[in-house]
Amino acid sequence: MMKVFIDVLIVSFFFLMGTSAQEVPESVSEETEMCISCHISYTPGIVYDWLESRHSKITPAEALKKPEIERRISNPEVAERLRHTTVGCYECHGLNPQMHEDNFPHFGFKINAIVSPNDCMTCHPVEVLQYSTSTKAHAVGNLSDNPLYTLLVETIIGLKTVEDTKVVRGEASDLTKRETCYGCHGTVIKVDGMKKIETEAGEIDVPNLSGWPNQGVGRINPDGSRGACSACHPRHAFSLKDARKLYTCAQCHLDPDVPAYNVYKESKHGNIYYARGDEWNFENVPWTLGRDFKTPTCAVCHASLIADEEGNVLAERTHNFDSRMWVRIFGLPYAHPHPKEGNTSIIKNAEGLPLPTTFLNQPASDYLIDSTTMGERQRKMEKLCQGCHSTDWVEKHFQKFDGTVKETNLMILAATQLLLEAWEQKLADKANPFDEEIEILWAKEWLFYPNSIRYASAMTGAPDYAAFKLGWWELSEKLQQMKNWIELRKK
Amino acid sequence: MMKVFIDVLIVSFFFLMGTSAQEVPESVSEETEMCISCHISYTPGIVYDWLESRHSKITPAEALKKPEIERRISNPEVAERLRHTTVGCYECHGLNPQMHEDNFPHFGFKINAIVSPNDCMTCHPVEVLQYSTSTKAHAVGNLSDNPLYTLLVETIIGLKTVEDTKVVRGEASDLTKRETCYGCHGTVIKVDGMKKIETEAGEIDVPNLSGWPNQGVGRINPDGSRGACSACHPRHAFSLKDARKLYTCAQCHLDPDVPAYNVYKESKHGNIYYARGDEWNFENVPWTLGRDFKTPTCAVCHASLIADEEGNVLAERTHNFDSRMWVRIFGLPYAHPHPKEGNTSIIKNAEGLPLPTTFLNQPASDYLIDSTTMGERQRKMEKLCQGCHSTDWVEKHFQKFDGTVKETNLMILAATQLLLEAWEQKLADKANPFDEEIEILWAKEWLFYPNSIRYASAMTGAPDYAAFKLGWWELSEKLQQMKNWIELRKK
Amino acid sequence: MMKVFIDVLIVSFFFLMGTSAQEVPESVSEETEMCISCHISYTPGIVYDWLESRHSKITPAEALKKPEIERRISNPEVAERLRHTTVGCYECHGLNPQMHEDNFPHFGFKINAIVSPNDCMTCHPVEVLQYSTSTKAHAVGNLSDNPLYTLLVETIIGLKTVEDTKVVRGEASDLTKRETCYGCHGTVIKVDGMKKIETEAGEIDVPNLSGWPNQGVGRINPDGSRGACSACHPRHAFSLKDARKLYTCAQCHLDPDVPAYNVYKESKHGNIYYARGDEWNFENVPWTLGRDFKTPTCAVCHASLIADEEGNVLAERTHNFDSRMWVRIFGLPYAHPHPKEGNTSIIKNAEGLPLPTTFLNQPASDYLIDSTTMGERQRKMEKLCQGCHSTDWVEKHFQKFDGTVKETNLMILAATQLLLEAWEQKLADKANPFDEEIEILWAKEWLFYPNSIRYASAMTGAPDYAAFKLGWWELSEKLQQMKNWIELRKK
Repeated sequence: MMKVFIDVLIVSFFFLMGTSAQEVPESVSEETEMCISCHISYTPGIVYDWLESRHSKITPAEALKKPEIERRISNPEVAERLRHTTVGCYECHGLNPQMHEDNFPHFGFKINAIVSPNDCMTCHPVEVLQYSTSTKAHAVGNLSDNPLYTLLVETIIGLKTVEDTKVVRGEASDLTKRETCYGCHGTVIKVDGMKKIETEAGEIDVPNLSGWPNQGVGRINPDGSRGACSACHPRHAFSLKDARKLYTCAQCHLDPDVPAYNVYKESKHGNIYYARGDEWNFENVPWTLGRDFKTPTCAVCHASLIADEEGNVLAERTHNFDSRMWVRIFGLPYAHPHPKEGNTSIIKNAEGLPLPTTFLNQPASDYLIDSTTMGERQRKMEKLCQGCHSTDWVEKHFQKFDGTVKETNLMILAATQLLLEAWEQKLADKANPFDEEIEILWAKEWLFYPNSIRYASAMTGAPDYAAFKLGWWELSEKLQQMKNWIELRKK
Repeated sequence: MMKVFIDVLIVSFFFLMGTSAQEVPESVSEETEMCISCHISYTPGIVYDWLESRHSKITPAEALKKPEIERRISNPEVAERLRHTTVGCYECHGLNPQMHEDNFPHFGFKINAIVSPNDCMTCHPVEVLQYSTSTKAHAVGNLSDNPLYTLLVETIIGLKTVEDTKVVRGEASDLTKRETCYGCHGTVIKVDGMKKIETEAGEIDVPNLSGWPNQGVGRINPDGSRGACSACHPRHAFSLKDARKLYTCAQCHLDPDVPAYNVYKESKHGNIYYARGDEWNFENVPWTLGRDFKTPTCAVCHASLIADEEGNVLAERTHNFDSRMWVRIFGLPYAHPHPKEGNTSIIKNAEGLPLPTTFLNQPASDYLIDSTTMGERQRKMEKLCQGCHSTDWVEKHFQKFDGTVKETNLMILAATQLLLEAWEQKLADKANPFDEEIEILWAKEWLFYPNSIRYASAMTGAPDYAAFKLGWWELSEKLQQMKNWIELRKK
Repeated sequence: MMKVFIDVLIVSFFFLMGTSAQEVPESVSEETEMCISCHISYTPGIVYDWLESRHSKITPAEALKKPEIERRISNPEVAERLRHTTVGCYECHGLNPQMHEDNFPHFGFKINAIVSPNDCMTCHPVEVLQYSTSTKAHAVGNLSDNPLYTLLVETIIGLKTVEDTKVVRGEASDLTKRETCYGCHGTVIKVDGMKKIETEAGEIDVPNLSGWPNQGVGRINPDGSRGACSACHPRHAFSLKDARKLYTCAQCHLDPDVPAYNVYKESKHGNIYYARGDEWNFENVPWTLGRDFKTPTCAVCHASLIADEEGNVLAERTHNFDSRMWVRIFGLPYAHPHPKEGNTSIIKNAEGLPLPTTFLNQPASDYLIDSTTMGERQRKMEKLCQGCHSTDWVEKHFQKFDGTVKETNLMILAATQLLLEAWEQKLADKANPFDEEIEILWAKEWLFYPNSIRYASAMTGAPDYAAFKLGWWELSEKLQQMKNWIELRKK
């Protein structure tokens, strides 16, 4: 009875809207129809985003009819209750209510404010489990549980005041943490009871969330799960295109500290993507090298299921983005073998610090992948390169990259030796290694410039970036400035 | 007779050009046909731009048949003489000749070189009047009538020479003013008599314009009107798409001083626009949230008529871009309530300076909107956010933004206290507050970095920008450099 | 017999692939069919790129049937052997084997690893000969044969180590040269015998190339020819679109040293391109101003055959990109008349240095074009501008540009006078003019900032770039820092 009423209401609504309106599919649930009947007025943007999504056009049962290699769904056993229903508002926001501290009564339904990876796991368990082991899933703790990193954070974003002609550093506020470091890494979302809010539909009660809004990759959700699928598949289209193009990766991976996007733009791959990418197909599964795209985007090398025209798999899909990477080329003083585990705050180097190498680049090998695993991962990547480049081309490309990793590490070693000299000579105080002039120069020497050079090396291009922009020019100039600083102080 | 001849000439011309050529519409005037008959050869670029424009495809009478909410024309009383004629060359360049110092005889017609807002007002009076009250319309005087700003301009772009081992600053040239500050703000266009020029059609006489070429937003035209509609609706397509996409705004609103474009690109809104914006509709009026676009561009929040699917107006169209803004977050030492009037050179703060706050951030409240108006404007913006985001999301978003405005202002206060100390200690000379090392550091502290942080806060994203790019990293580093500078000089 | 077998094999293959697969055209050669039969599996990316290219869809004979103005081929006498065959793998990789040190036996064929401009000359002789006289074709020697430039290169990218508290500069490695300066300029590709490589098809022998991979514009190939057509027409689409859009130019021409791309993006031309360029035609030959595009890209002004609607040529096609340029505005201390020849390492100024001007800006006029040639080139460019802008507009635009060239040169003169003073006062050592603090400031003064200002002037826009980004702000600040540096050292 209720369903019939809502059906009429929605059909009438879309009828009134004319031909441009999207059809609500027949297999939509009664609950979701209820959601839409109000939210098409209150939040039309996300309703339309969903109406153009795959979720609104298919049921799990239909999705599972496809050959396995073409599937975007990885649970062959979706519960009968959900199996024949369009993936709509209630199908996601109504899942696992008992686990959600953010579950609240909303016009007769029990709704979760935040849909979490644990909910998405209902249909996409393989992806969620892969993701859960990645450094991304641990991005909050990898920052907040590492005392050196938190000191860096506080030094940069702590609010400074001038008191009695001295510059005094206060604590970094939660809001500024959320707008900077934890904007990418993620926040801890907590429910501080309920609050009343005024809406156009009158006063309603909603959970009072702290750490919100946030879509960081390692977000800790009210159900205890880690991550925000919406970080890369933004709401509510959850589209492959969004994740396969470069822009969503670029929200966090760009200059000066992680200049992946900047370097890609200036690489030959990027040039071709910008000139002809609008002719390519960003929706097909599997994603066919050559036919669907001509040059890689981030997803091709680091995440997507890639096949050739004959259906041979060139790379398995992975949502543990670490699993095709062998050297970590940013974020730490030296480039080093990739950590074994997503949780990097457990690492201890020979100096007892939570870093993958010592100050003078001795690796904390127990926590890092070994050369066999490195080789395996490199060969996975090479197989993709060989889709367009000769075996010799690829081999020489990675020889060059290896050399670049070594050279940039040697430049950082030189900078670190100068810093150690400054500390030994008591020209600077090592208590906080990030807050004095020479220390800031040192931090730039490893946090910014070598990363540009390594990314440019890895991505077949961006020579100007590596030379003049934020690479060798700056790396050499700052090294000299460190030396000058020491000499001046010695005099 | 003449008209028939020209008709034949143009029809023949387009016939010869084959099927790809655009048709000149029937309702085009005899005068415009004359213009086109030559200018299709002499300036085909602008003729083609116009041929693809709405102006070439519709008469005011036809435009006025649309329901009011769908109209791009705001004068229901367009003069009979223009009402049934395509909006062509002569319809615009022939208007109000008596007001135009730049009117000149041109092959039998009286032509204005520059079409001004006062001419556009013939069909678009509401937009022109709105614009005329905005800070944009006053952008020339807001710069040139403010002695502090002109001193900053001269300090940056004045030509320097070395004389007797001293660096001597000369006056900034008109050409360099036009290529820098006044390229965005606009120039004063004057007519210095007539000049002869050689063209492919032989020698002709044209007005000798000074301050030209220029499309700055506050340009003062030969008819005395302010502004250049072509700044955002570039010639001769005058397209909604140009103004609704971000690029035309980005010509002036980008880093380092007004990093709106840069931050948008790195925000989630920007990510989605770049990934899927090519599927959206940038021409519809009204512009329907959800159906026509999924994430906002500059125009959505600051200018356009936005409706929902049911035709409810979510935001009225405005060409006074100030009218949806409550805090001004760039261009002045501190973020502050928006000025009441477009002409900001009238502002006097408690220190007698033409600035909206004092050096230590006491607001010149008489000239700024009060908290009631601020709240009203904020609620206008929130209504748009709520098209996709929950009431709670929006509320917390703007709480965060308020906090960011406060924190960045406190950082600037700290920098200003250091500058005052330097002046008091006679370490620097306050006569020109922009030309010594510590003064340049101070200028960067308010002119560049806090703006990045505030824009990143306002636009749901760009955490890396706010942290490392041109935000907190630089803000904290430069503050320390100011302190070091003072300490070194004291010793 | 073989051909029939392969035909069947390929047809079967594409049949199996279904309707989405591209058809291999009938006129493809037996050899190319053999190549594709394996490479569709081993390197599907480049096979697909070619399948969508014009090369795969046309024979030289068909191409030559077009009216001359529409041709992309410039040899009317293509050898009979190649004339009726699709331009496939073997047609290019099998040319002139006797000239190729990189020719090697490969599954029964004699294949060149690298296709060179000398090979492309088979069908495109006019373009190759034009290119061969350009500065681009000489880009390797213009850098490596100029001792001052090589010193700059070594200073920036030489590997530094700290030995006994001193910073010691080692030699720049080949790999880093290739990833920075010579990434754009090009490398010398040599064949160091053969090597065995493991492929999916088993072990094979291939030439062991040094200096590879590289696509620099001046690359010296194993057949002795100069240049890499693939630098701008990347493999294996060789598309006009790639070269006519801006991105391929932008791989090397961007900030900080050659900020052409950056300035274009912020210019009005760029704004319109980004908003509406997706509606334009980037394939037509000739390229028709107004109909095919509304604002210029790099290629419009510097390379392409541009016509008006009536078929009149507004600019002849050229692959000597110097030939429409009269002032060189980057890369050297002062802007100066363009060099007469592509090989600039032959230039000697009055001080005996290989630079087009002296330290105090006296031009080496014997090696530079004279004012007549400058005027002719400027008029060529103006003719394109006049496609959209009035004669007066264009005249005033270039007057402004002339003034900007003069002003920026005067600013560099001031910086150079300060450097000379530092050297004379023995505050710095002129032995290496690039490695001390004041010398680095001086290098930035001519290598980075004035170029931004000149590009912004040349390209009708980017006022914010010229003012605040990398232009006047930096130019004035660094000049003052040079002065401060000298004064501090004098005390």
